[in-house]
Amino acid sequence: MKSHKMSSPQSPASGKPSSHLETLILLETNLDDMPAEWFGPLLDQLLASGALDAWFTSIQMKKNRPAVQLSVLCPPERADELRALIFAHTSTLGIRQREVQRYSLPRRVETVETRFGTIRVKLAEYAPGQWKVAPEFEDCLAAARAHNVPLAEVYRSTLAAWDCSAS
Amino acid sequence: MKSHKMSSPQSPASGKPSSHLETLILLETNLDDMPAEWFGPLLDQLLASGALDAWFTSIQMKKNRPAVQLSVLCPPERADELRALIFAHTSTLGIRQREVQRYSLPRRVETVETRFGTIRVKLAEYAPGQWKVAPEFEDCLAAARAHNVPLAEVYRSTLAAWDCSAS
Amino acid sequence: MKSHKMSSPQSPASGKPSSHLETLILLETNLDDMPAEWFGPLLDQLLASGALDAWFTSIQMKKNRPAVQLSVLCPPERADELRALIFAHTSTLGIRQREVQRYSLPRRVETVETRFGTIRVKLAEYAPGQWKVAPEFEDCLAAARAHNVPLAEVYRSTLAAWDCSAS
Amino acid sequence: MKSHKMSSPQSPASGKPSSHLETLILLETNLDDMPAEWFGPLLDQLLASGALDAWFTSIQMKKNRPAVQLSVLCPPERADELRALIFAHTSTLGIRQREVQRYSLPRRVETVETRFGTIRVKLAEYAPGQWKVAPEFEDCLAAARAHNVPLAEVYRSTLAAWDCSAS
Amino acid sequence: MKSHKMSSPQSPASGKPSSHLETLILLETNLDDMPAEWFGPLLDQLLASGALDAWFTSIQMKKNRPAVQLSVLCPPERADELRALIFAHTSTLGIRQREVQRYSLPRRVETVETRFGTIRVKLAEYAPGQWKVAPEFEDCLAAARAHNVPLAEVYRSTLAAWDCSAS
Amino acid sequence: MKSHKMSSPQSPASGKPSSHLETLILLETNLDDMPAEWFGPLLDQLLASGALDAWFTSIQMKKNRPAVQLSVLCPPERADELRALIFAHTSTLGIRQREVQRYSLPRRVETVETRFGTIRVKLAEYAPGQWKVAPEFEDCLAAARAHNVPLAEVYRSTLAAWDCSAS
Repeated sequence: MKSHKMSSPQSPASGKPSSHLETLILLETNLDDMPAEWFGPLLDQLLASGALDAWFTSIQMKKNRPAVQLSVLCPPERADELRALIFAHTSTLGIRQREVQRYSLPRRVETVETRFGTIRVKLAEYAPGQWKVAPEFEDCLAAARAHNVPLAEVYRSTLAAWDCSAS
Repeated sequence: MKSHKMSSPQSPASGKPSSHLETLILLETNLDDMPAEWFGPLLDQLLASGALDAWFTSIQMKKNRPAVQLSVLCPPERADELRALIFAHTSTLGIRQREVQRYSLPRRVETVETRFGTIRVKLAEYAPGQWKVAPEFEDCLAAARAHNVPLAEVYRSTLAAWDCSAS
Repeated sequence: MKSHKMSSPQSPASGKPSSHLETLILLETNLDDMPAEWFGPLLDQLLASGALDAWFTSIQMKKNRPAVQLSVLCPPERADELRALIFAHTSTLGIRQREVQRYSLPRRVETVETRFGTIRVKLAEYAPGQWKVAPEFEDCLAAARAHNVPLAEVYRSTLAAWDCSAS
Repeated sequence: MKSHKMSSPQSPASGKPSSHLETLILLETNLDDMPAEWFGPLLDQLLASGALDAWFTSIQMKKNRPAVQLSVLCPPERADELRALIFAHTSTLGIRQREVQRYSLPRRVETVETRFGTIRVKLAEYAPGQWKVAPEFEDCLAAARAHNVPLAEVYRSTLAAWDCSAS
Repeated sequence: MKSHKMSSPQSPASGKPSSHLETLILLETNLDDMPAEWFGPLLDQLLASGALDAWFTSIQMKKNRPAVQLSVLCPPERADELRALIFAHTSTLGIRQREVQRYSLPRRVETVETRFGTIRVKLAEYAPGQWKVAPEFEDCLAAARAHNVPLAEVYRSTLAAWDCSAS
Repeated sequence: MKSHKMSSPQSPASGKPSSHLETLILLETNLDDMPAEWFGPLLDQLLASGALDAWFTSIQMKKNRPAVQLSVLCPPERADELRALIFAHTSTLGIRQREVQRYSLPRRVETVETRFGTIRVKLAEYAPGQWKVAPEFEDCLAAARAHNVPLAEVYRSTLAAWDCSAS
């Protein structure tokens, strides 16, 4: 692991890390006649059905309605099915759709040994030779529960372990 | 009404309900120098001038400003007039515009008899032979006021009446 | 009107404007199983039934619910009736209640002549001899509609007319 | 079930439903140095440790920080432990605490037979002889998944079944 | 200044003010693993690096995360650099990008003399011969601090001075 | 620094860290007729005048107003002056006030040497012998700017340096 800052197939020393570019679909709809408790399962279903991401934004609509905008990001080939799912599981009668470009950083996963066990970290090269690191949330959560410690402690130990081994 | 689940011109038994697709315009602008009390009449004006929908999103801008994003959805032929209206009635100097596709479910309106009188329900076929139903808000509100009962009771009676007659 | 900055019964030159202090009740409840379109009529009813103010705050509840907190401010003698109204017209099973002190500025209303007609302004003395002024929203809205001009123009004319006459 | 509107031990015909009153504790803290992904597990822990409710409100703090206020409602005897939990699992150094009164409607649970199986409904008498009814979310969710239908359909069937049997 | 409503090079008496149209880039990313206190400096950096505007929207993501959407508006030629900056200074691994059209009102700046000194006002012709006016925020803030008066007073004086001189 | 987990005057091994308890004042007001750009300077003034904290919450008021609630936390002896300041610098005519208890963790500050220089960390003992640590935001920001690196890197280095030295 020591050398992982030295070699980077994605970014030769002379170049710039090539962020990946793809065309995705963003679906949006405003929901003003659906109780809040139906939204959680909807999000789970969308993510289980191929959405890359899905989220809610609180909005204020006509007639003083504290409503919610649903946003769903997906690959073009999943759009039809996800629209059908939104139509079936929400009260909406209309879904807005548009294309977006998405730039993504190439990433890879490593593991570090911590006093809470092995934790994966996600590495992304945001500039030539410059990496950002993020401990895997689910690993940290599992470790925090297993050791009955705050999440913050697992994150800190993971980052420290990675930092020490990397330097 | 009994048979309304049986026949569906929009969706032959073998097919899929044809959702309607159209290209609309979405106008957006960030408002950080306009008092909150001016927003309500603005929304009314926009809707009265051909906007299909209009809503506010609370945003956080530079210099710690708790500002508001205005969004307006409209047919392309209304965009010029609505932009002029936004420029006249808000403090903004710039309006963002982009096209969106909108998929809409074919819908029709029926009426049901309830103990609070006749209430319209909106029906939309979200999958072949599968309908979702929504009582008309304004009908329910009028009935709730006339009978001095909670809106929830009118909705429930309407859905029950529809369900009983439909099954 | 010229002299209105000179005399102020509420605040003798030597003193401090006496803000009014009273004990009010704040009712709050979290709503996660009620569609957004029911909220507008609820607000109207609360205000028509003696609430001094009522408002919504978007909150995020368990199970990923984008819910709404309702807040209602009222005099102690209206609390019973308003709680009954909230219980009847929302889905909630519990209402939180607590006392708050409210400090209010003494205020009075004057009128100014503008090119859009007579407009009331609300005046409040926030420090000895220092007044803040606010055009009456409903007057401005009516004038803006009658003259088909932006609200901003009516406000500006009103403030200018007041400022000119006052100085 | 037919007769359930006839008898109501909590509210003799001549009286008013006695809403239950108790004193609870509301804990609040502002969190501006904790990543969003740590908040979900925190909510689960709070609810598992005796919080009656817990929720987030987006706030805007100094230095343009889009932060989050955590609110936790609990019985007085759980306050110490929940504060300790918040101190351990968040970045905060200070927790605000105050008492609130909570009025609750007496409620009871019944079951109704629907075409999706047996579903519990929660009943609360919000005025003498006036009941509001809410299908149990978890029952509906389970039924919707088991029958692969939208939640809305299970709710509607449940309300209709209850309404038909009740009337 | 008296005549400034009479002549308007941008809008001959017979025409319509020509709002300026340009194509811009809107960058967006959802941030759920970055503490709130890192957002303020990020906004400053984006604006210092060529962003025309940048703002935050509170969103609700999967796993009950109270997250933040960052939006950045910029000219096409700044998009590469701003994306690099976002990748470097946030936790994100993906940035959404799309084109938007922006309509802008032609504007010019004048000055007015007030009892708090010279204040600039921004003028924009939103319809032929119809101007809206906005005092310059930074001028007003500086004057308010120098004279130790509320911002509202500086704004009002500025608008009044402009209105009087203009009419 | 090595031994700082061993000795803790605030919490003898046998006991529980004594969180500090004090009574504070929470001031709140709803602002619906004040432009967003006036809010930033207001926050600065409040914090400069003895507020312990001050923040905004987006709310939705009557007549479809996307308004803002201002909250200010302060010691009782600052309440009069802060109310006067709010009355002077906002459009409000009424301010709600109530007492809250605040529990605070005892904290102390240490410094760690990092590759970006000396950085202070705040330490708080949230349970006997259990410390949480937070790098000082302003130190990290200054270092990040001086070394032209992301804030995340300074935080990570600081936490790692602290963790290594502490263990």
